[in-house]
Amino acid sequence: MDTPVTHSPVIAARLAAVRQVMNTRGIRALFDPSRDPHLSDYLPERWKGREWLSNFTGSMGSLAVLADRAVLFADSRYWVQAEHELQGTGITLFKIRSGASMEHVDWLAENVATGGTVAVDGAVLSLSAQRLLASALTAKGVTLRTDTDVFDAAWPERPSLPQAAVTDYTAPHAVLSRAQKLAATRDAMRKAGAQWHVISTLDDIAYLLNLRGSDVSFNPVFVAHAIIGVGSAQLFVADGKVGAALAATLRADGVEVLPYPSFAAALGQLSGNVLIDPRRVTFGTVQSLGKETRTVEAVNPTTFAKSRKLPAEAQFVRETMEHDGAAMCAFYAWFESAQGREHITEITIDEKLTAERMKRPGFVTRSFATIAGFNANGALPHYRAEPATAAVISGDGLLLIDSGGQYLGGTTDITRVWPVGKITDAQRRDYTLVLKGTIGLSMARFPKGTKSPYLDALARAPIWSAGIDYGHGTGHGVGFFMNVHEGPQSISQSMPDPHTAMEEGMITSIEPGIYRVGQWGIRIENLVLNVPATEVANAGFGDFLQFETLTL
Amino acid sequence: MDTPVTHSPVIAARLAAVRQVMNTRGIRALFDPSRDPHLSDYLPERWKGREWLSNFTGSMGSLAVLADRAVLFADSRYWVQAEHELQGTGITLFKIRSGASMEHVDWLAENVATGGTVAVDGAVLSLSAQRLLASALTAKGVTLRTDTDVFDAAWPERPSLPQAAVTDYTAPHAVLSRAQKLAATRDAMRKAGAQWHVISTLDDIAYLLNLRGSDVSFNPVFVAHAIIGVGSAQLFVADGKVGAALAATLRADGVEVLPYPSFAAALGQLSGNVLIDPRRVTFGTVQSLGKETRTVEAVNPTTFAKSRKLPAEAQFVRETMEHDGAAMCAFYAWFESAQGREHITEITIDEKLTAERMKRPGFVTRSFATIAGFNANGALPHYRAEPATAAVISGDGLLLIDSGGQYLGGTTDITRVWPVGKITDAQRRDYTLVLKGTIGLSMARFPKGTKSPYLDALARAPIWSAGIDYGHGTGHGVGFFMNVHEGPQSISQSMPDPHTAMEEGMITSIEPGIYRVGQWGIRIENLVLNVPATEVANAGFGDFLQFETLTL
Repeated sequence: MDTPVTHSPVIAARLAAVRQVMNTRGIRALFDPSRDPHLSDYLPERWKGREWLSNFTGSMGSLAVLADRAVLFADSRYWVQAEHELQGTGITLFKIRSGASMEHVDWLAENVATGGTVAVDGAVLSLSAQRLLASALTAKGVTLRTDTDVFDAAWPERPSLPQAAVTDYTAPHAVLSRAQKLAATRDAMRKAGAQWHVISTLDDIAYLLNLRGSDVSFNPVFVAHAIIGVGSAQLFVADGKVGAALAATLRADGVEVLPYPSFAAALGQLSGNVLIDPRRVTFGTVQSLGKETRTVEAVNPTTFAKSRKLPAEAQFVRETMEHDGAAMCAFYAWFESAQGREHITEITIDEKLTAERMKRPGFVTRSFATIAGFNANGALPHYRAEPATAAVISGDGLLLIDSGGQYLGGTTDITRVWPVGKITDAQRRDYTLVLKGTIGLSMARFPKGTKSPYLDALARAPIWSAGIDYGHGTGHGVGFFMNVHEGPQSISQSMPDPHTAMEEGMITSIEPGIYRVGQWGIRIENLVLNVPATEVANAGFGDFLQFETLTL
Repeated sequence: MDTPVTHSPVIAARLAAVRQVMNTRGIRALFDPSRDPHLSDYLPERWKGREWLSNFTGSMGSLAVLADRAVLFADSRYWVQAEHELQGTGITLFKIRSGASMEHVDWLAENVATGGTVAVDGAVLSLSAQRLLASALTAKGVTLRTDTDVFDAAWPERPSLPQAAVTDYTAPHAVLSRAQKLAATRDAMRKAGAQWHVISTLDDIAYLLNLRGSDVSFNPVFVAHAIIGVGSAQLFVADGKVGAALAATLRADGVEVLPYPSFAAALGQLSGNVLIDPRRVTFGTVQSLGKETRTVEAVNPTTFAKSRKLPAEAQFVRETMEHDGAAMCAFYAWFESAQGREHITEITIDEKLTAERMKRPGFVTRSFATIAGFNANGALPHYRAEPATAAVISGDGLLLIDSGGQYLGGTTDITRVWPVGKITDAQRRDYTLVLKGTIGLSMARFPKGTKSPYLDALARAPIWSAGIDYGHGTGHGVGFFMNVHEGPQSISQSMPDPHTAMEEGMITSIEPGIYRVGQWGIRIENLVLNVPATEVANAGFGDFLQFETLTL
C-alpha cells in the first residue's frame, strides 16, 4: 500500500519521527488514548501528544499510527472540526458513535496483523481500557506493549509538568474539613477491606484534601497522585507547587507532601490490600504496586462523596446561581442594546460575558471555553470561535451561547439560544421541541436509585417524535467548585455501563438539543439538583426524587 | 448456630437427604440456579429440583443450602407467594431486586467460609453465570465445584426426560425453509470465523429446524441440543421422539438425528473454532468441548434472526390477533351476562377464556398459565389461582386477566383489567396512570438502533410522577409460535446489560402496572411490532422506528 501524501510538512515530519522510533522499537502500531497519568478530560500540555502529532485540537479523540497510515477516532461532536483540522495531514478520520465507544479496539485488532505489536504508554492508559485492549489484541495474536513512551523520544520540545501553585480551599465554602473527608475515606476503605487507597484523578485529590490549583484549563485542580493509608496520607506533587505554609498546614492534618516522581517507588513499597478504581488509575500505576499487594476494585469513595452535594454546598450553589444569572442578564441587556450599534462577533460575546462574570463575587475562572455559535456555527455542539473566522452577529438567526463559571461557591454551566432579527417558523418549531425535552425531564419524578442513563429518553421523546435526535448525552454531573464534567452519574445512553444510581444531592445538567448542519443549532441547558419528591412521599412506593432547577 | 426448626416433614427429609450427600462429598454449600441444560425459563419436571427441595413453585428463584440453613432468592413478583409456600420449611426468603440480580453471588461469597466448597451442577449453569460465580468465590478463597449433581443421589423419584413427540412445522406458517435457516446460520458462522456452532436453547433449535414439541408447559419446544457444522447438522434428542418419517425428512434436509445422551461425546470430537453464546450454553457443555477447539463468543445467530419477524410472519400475527381478540370479546360477553347469575371464580375465568381460544383456528395451547386475579389477588403480578383458594368474582372491584395463546400463526399475550360492580376514584386514577404509561410508550418514535431498555422510562414517567412504581420490566420480546418470553430485546432497566438494539420486525410487550398489596392490581399489556416511522422518514436524522400495536 502506498503511503498517502501528507501535505502538512510539520505534521509529516512529526509522523516520520514517531514512525522512526516505532521502527527502532519493533512497534507495528502506536495508539495514543489522549489521556494523562490522571485520566483527566482536560490535559496539561505535556500530554497533548495527539494534538502535537495530528493537528486535531478537540478535547476528546484518540490516534492510531501505523507505518502506512494514521487514523483519528472522534465522535460526532468533533467530526466537522476534525475534518477541517486534519486537512492535508494525511490522517484519516474514523467516525465513532460516542466518546465512550470502544471502536478503536476493534479497529486495532483488525488492522494489525497477527504477530505484530501495538504500543500504548501504560502511564496514560486506564486499567479498564488496558483490559479491553489486551483481551481483543491477544485474541488476534497481537501483542500489547505498555512499557514504552514513544513521545519521549520523538518529541524533543515536549513541555514539562505544570508549575502553578496549589492553594488551600477553606471554610465557609469547604463545608467539610480535610480531616473529616480523610476519615470518611478511611471508613470506606475499611468497609472494602483495604489498608491502602491509591488516587490519581485530580478532582478526587482536590476534593479530598480541600486543595485547588490551576494546572489545566478551567478545572481548578493540580497534577498530583495520592496514597491514603489507614494512618497516613501522602501527596505526590511537583516541587515548589506547595508552599511552606501550606505544607505545614497539611502536615498538621496528617498529609505528607512528597515529590511527584517518587510516586512509583512509593507504590512499590506498599503491601496489603489496595483499593483502586479500574477506571481511575492507569495500568502503569497497577504495574508499579508492590508484589505483596492485592487490589480491591471499587469506584473511588471520593467520587461518590463529592457527587452528593451537602445541603450547605447546595445552598452556596443557589447563591452562586443568583450571581451567575445576574451576569447573564447584564450581558443580554448589553447585547440587546448593542445590536446594530456595535460590531459584535462570536469572540466579543465571550469577552463581554466573561467580563460580566468577573464582576461577581467568588468568580475564579470560566468553567470551560465559551461556545458562542451564530446560525451554522451553533450546529457544532463543541464549536469554539477563532479570531480569524468568528462569525459577525448581524442579520437574522439564532445565537447559541454555552458558558459557565468557576466560583468559590460552585460551578455553573448554562446554555441559552437568543433570537437575532427575525426567526423562522422552522426555528421556532425546533426550539419548542427542545424546550419540551428540557421540561419533560426537568419535571420528572423517579425512584431513588434509578440508574441515571435510563432518564435520558425522557428528554429525547418529544424530539424523537419529530424524527430528530442529537448526538450527545442529555446530562453530565457537575462538581462543586470543581470539574464541570464530573462522574459518576450521567444522563446518557452511550455510557459503557448504566450502573450509577441517582442519589440525593447530585447536580447534573439537562441539555437536549437539535443541530441542523449548515443552518442552526439549538440547545437549552440548566443544572438541576436531586431533591426528595416530598409531594409524593406518602404514596407507599418508597423514596422518590425530583429535580430542583438551580439555573436561574 | 442451631438448626432452625423445619415444620414440613417432607421438606425436612429432603433437605436432610441433600445435606447427607453434601457431607459425603465435602460440599459446604449447594447452589441450585433453577435452570436446565437448555437454560429454559420453563423447566421440564426432571430439573425442578428447587421446587422439590423447597416447596416454592414460582417460575424463577434460586436456592442455596448450607449445613445449618437454606435460602431462597426471589424477586418482588414472587415475594408473597414464596413467603406462603416456604412457611414451615425453615427456608428463608432472600428478597432480590430483580430476576436478573446477582445478589446470590455476593451472598454465597459472604456466607461460605474461606476454604469451603460451593457445588453447582455445571450442566445447568450458564457459562456467563459460572464466570461471575467463580470470580466472586475465588476472590474469597472459596472453591466452586461444577462436576457433581447432588439431586441425582438425593432424589430417588427424580423424573426422567420428557417423551412427547417432535412435530414438523411447515409452510405456510413456517415462512423460511429449514435449508434457508441453516444457510443463514452458516453464513453468520462464517462471518464469526467459526466452523461449528453449538446450540442448547430449545427455542433456537425449534426455530432453526422448523420443529415444534410439547416438552415444557406453554412453550412449543422439545428437549434437544444441536451441533451445526459447515456441512453437517446434528440434532440430539431422546429416543422415540422423532418418528421415522420426520427423521427421513430431516435427513433429506441434511439434519442427522442422534441420541440425546451422545451430545457430550460429540462435543469431545469437535476441533476448530466453535461459536457459542455464553448466556445460552452451560459451563458443562463448554467443559465437554474437544481440546483442539477454540470458542468464539457471540449471541446465537438464530436468537437475532427469530427476533426480527419477517413481513409474512407479522401478517400471520395480525390475523392471529383478530382471532385472539375475538376470543377475548366472546369471553367478556359471557362474563358480562353471567355476572350475578353464575358462580364465577378465578378458575372459571381461565376455563371459559381458554375454551373461547380453543374455538379459534390454529390454536394449539395457552402461551402461559392464565393470571386471573380479583382485587387483592390482582396485586400479585405472577398470581395463579388454585381451586381451593380461588376468589369468587362478586361484589365490587377490579379483575385483572393476563392470558395468551400459542397459535400456528403466532403467539399472543394480553392483559386487561375489567371493572366489576362499582369502582372507586382511586382505582380510576391508578388505571388512568397505567393507561398513560401504555400510551406514552406505544406512541413513541425512536432512532433505529436505540437500546431497548432505554425506552422503559417512557412507560414509567406518568406513574413515577405520582410517586408510584412497578417491580417488573415494562416489556419482553415475544416469539412467533414460540416462547412468550423471547430475547434478545427487553424493555427493562434491570437487564444485566442494555446492549440489544431495537430493530425492525421485533415484537415486544408493553405492560406497565400498579400493584397495591392487599387491594388491587392494574396492568395493561399489548404486543407491539417495530415498524419504520415513515411519517418522519425525511427529517434528515436517520432511520426512526415506531410501534404498531398488534393486540386488538
